[in-house]
Amino acid sequence: MRILNIKTKKYLGKKIKVAGWVNSRRDHGKIVFLDLRDRSGILQVVAESKIAEGIKEEDVLEIEGEVKERPKEMVNPKLETGSVELKAEKIKILAKSSKLPFDIKNLKLSLPRLLDFRPLTLRNERQKAIFRIQAEIISSFRNTMKSFGFFEFEAPTLVASATEGGAEVFHVDYFDKDAYLAQSPQLYKQILVSVFERVFTVCKAFRAEPSMTTRHLTEYISLDCEMGFIESWEDLMEVCEIIMKNIFSDVEKNCKKELEIWGAKVPEIRGKIPRLKLREAQEIILQRTGKDKRKNPDLDPEDEKEICNFVKEKFNSELVFITHFPTSKRPFYTFEDPENPEYTLSFDLLFRGLEIVTGGQRINDYKYLVKKMRGFGLDPKNFKYYLQAFKYGMPPEGGFAIGAERMTKQILGLENIREASLFVRDLQRIDTKLRKKK
Amino acid sequence: MRILNIKTKKYLGKKIKVAGWVNSRRDHGKIVFLDLRDRSGILQVVAESKIAEGIKEEDVLEIEGEVKERPKEMVNPKLETGSVELKAEKIKILAKSSKLPFDIKNLKLSLPRLLDFRPLTLRNERQKAIFRIQAEIISSFRNTMKSFGFFEFEAPTLVASATEGGAEVFHVDYFDKDAYLAQSPQLYKQILVSVFERVFTVCKAFRAEPSMTTRHLTEYISLDCEMGFIESWEDLMEVCEIIMKNIFSDVEKNCKKELEIWGAKVPEIRGKIPRLKLREAQEIILQRTGKDKRKNPDLDPEDEKEICNFVKEKFNSELVFITHFPTSKRPFYTFEDPENPEYTLSFDLLFRGLEIVTGGQRINDYKYLVKKMRGFGLDPKNFKYYLQAFKYGMPPEGGFAIGAERMTKQILGLENIREASLFVRDLQRIDTKLRKKK
Repeated sequence: MRILNIKTKKYLGKKIKVAGWVNSRRDHGKIVFLDLRDRSGILQVVAESKIAEGIKEEDVLEIEGEVKERPKEMVNPKLETGSVELKAEKIKILAKSSKLPFDIKNLKLSLPRLLDFRPLTLRNERQKAIFRIQAEIISSFRNTMKSFGFFEFEAPTLVASATEGGAEVFHVDYFDKDAYLAQSPQLYKQILVSVFERVFTVCKAFRAEPSMTTRHLTEYISLDCEMGFIESWEDLMEVCEIIMKNIFSDVEKNCKKELEIWGAKVPEIRGKIPRLKLREAQEIILQRTGKDKRKNPDLDPEDEKEICNFVKEKFNSELVFITHFPTSKRPFYTFEDPENPEYTLSFDLLFRGLEIVTGGQRINDYKYLVKKMRGFGLDPKNFKYYLQAFKYGMPPEGGFAIGAERMTKQILGLENIREASLFVRDLQRIDTKLRKKK
Repeated sequence: MRILNIKTKKYLGKKIKVAGWVNSRRDHGKIVFLDLRDRSGILQVVAESKIAEGIKEEDVLEIEGEVKERPKEMVNPKLETGSVELKAEKIKILAKSSKLPFDIKNLKLSLPRLLDFRPLTLRNERQKAIFRIQAEIISSFRNTMKSFGFFEFEAPTLVASATEGGAEVFHVDYFDKDAYLAQSPQLYKQILVSVFERVFTVCKAFRAEPSMTTRHLTEYISLDCEMGFIESWEDLMEVCEIIMKNIFSDVEKNCKKELEIWGAKVPEIRGKIPRLKLREAQEIILQRTGKDKRKNPDLDPEDEKEICNFVKEKFNSELVFITHFPTSKRPFYTFEDPENPEYTLSFDLLFRGLEIVTGGQRINDYKYLVKKMRGFGLDPKNFKYYLQAFKYGMPPEGGFAIGAERMTKQILGLENIREASLFVRDLQRIDTKLRKKK
């Protein structure tokens, strides 16, 4: 039976079998040192050159041999298996590798080339670390949601109409009919609040974003939740805060090595995340930069950075909630602030200069929702399915969505969101650069 | 603070607040009994009729009152909260319900109508139970995978070409280019075996299935995994067996009430699931039915039922692996049986008369894979991205996919797969029946 590299220390003096990829080969006369890489880590293998003939980097091997303690001067404290090595007796080649186009242990590639060679470049420890952290973020979100009694569902991808605004939606040829890719699971998670009260989904969201930015993907992972029987919209920010705290502490605890590789640190959240109304934030920006953005309906990327600098200086916080966005610029289902209906009970969460969460309370009153739809130029007839949830009794509710790639990008300080997407889809790329239509 | 119905027993004699939907109302003179439904269950509320005026089924209420022991003759042993009731002091209406179009506690609807009213019909306990069981299936799959060191990833939905065969793929208008919806995460999970060795995903798969059957959806949930460094293709069936055993025992343990509502039982797996080669199965079918299907490349639905009857009678098993499908009818990446290359090291798992899993070993040798592609009329140039995983060393590997809706359907004995899909997409329907293109 194959033993994982990380477990070899337990087999000191024993004959075992390991398997993996050749991470590196170093020849010392009649002796060859192979670093064997498997999913658990790296193990040093010592072989006589005659049984390691022709073996090159990335060849896939199965090796039988004896686990030995390394001589003291040879112990590598940086390696988890650094106190042992395998004395190879038999090497079986499971698959050969072609000559590598570049050194995958030490990548120095432009972003396009990194992505063109994604299947290969993912073997690099630093690249792999990005997605181990992303998996931890998702897993942590799921665990927190479950611990609060949220029901997990799989949100649909194909939808019959563009719900949240027209332009940035992908059209699908659906037999002799039209369909679209969901821009968010919004309407579905609301429907399910009327069934399960609290729901969440880890799903794909699609935006036909026609520009190339460092913050947008056409297909991204959305961590979405929705919660009924809220007493106040602030309940939502409190749940969001707990999710964030748990993500940061889970990543710190379970991805030590990955954070170290990137020299990254997760933020500390002490007490509450600061909260600023949009208009307050814009006043602050005016004071700090002289730029008057007090009539803008949202913060632009520059503003997000500036306001994050401010909260870092003033509150020593790397996160900030921006609240009370204008009613006219939020979707039809957004709940208005009873104190000032020009603004909504909505929020964004900024983290190190980038929006990573959007959410808010929703309208739960059936008649008012129908009225609001009409005001947005939408025909309630087209929303009959969705409206059932409200027509037959919907509690006060709200929710939010976290962008998983953005979260990953900000934790690691990546420059481009594409680095945090396993298989990149953007204006020009699905895996590799797309060819023009014939 | 709101107390969940299920927890009220702990507050005997205390004043608390509960919230939920009115499941039913029974008037007894000056006293009204309300069954209040929340996500945890049902609680009986007793109110004077004057404070319950106008309250109807599905209204959403917040109720303050005192938890009291029920008189002995009033105890309802069928209800988890059946020993207590809430004496209402104050009732707040959070949302009103319109008049219900049918009795949602006792649904007697045709399937189309059940689906047209999905947001409302999901409030029915029996309907809700289907999706609680489905969530448990998915959760169990995830837990088993994680326990074996499989890495979870989110498979992409948009792909640049139709990979597994041409016709049944949805086309997407991707800016001025073409894209498609993934028929499976196959190529991506294989790529990731060369990175993480063992991977799994809970993803959506899309089939432009042009016929209406009781077994097909255009969008369904696929529980997919792929495993490197297998010693034999039988390793895959062993992992699959463990997943099945765990799903059945988790559903049995955590969905007692839901199984009871449906009068359903999960199967017992004693020892190994029986295994039959396709040709053996066809011989058995010939013997039992007189129908000679020995030259067919696959089993048809009728055959699947017949062979399940056979294994039930012969081995007292509700599951059976069918193996060794013909090479010509499986995708290009399927591994051939070295003993007879006309057949593949592939398998289907049938459960109570329906295929719920497909899998097998894959070709991991780069040169042979390229050759096989050409034999299938595919241009390896179009697969350069995918082929990187093989060109630079891929271990022996294989995997399989479980259909989550099919699994749910078979456990509960549902007649139509649509009953097991939360939001149904088929030839004619996305949520509701589609209108013809304008």
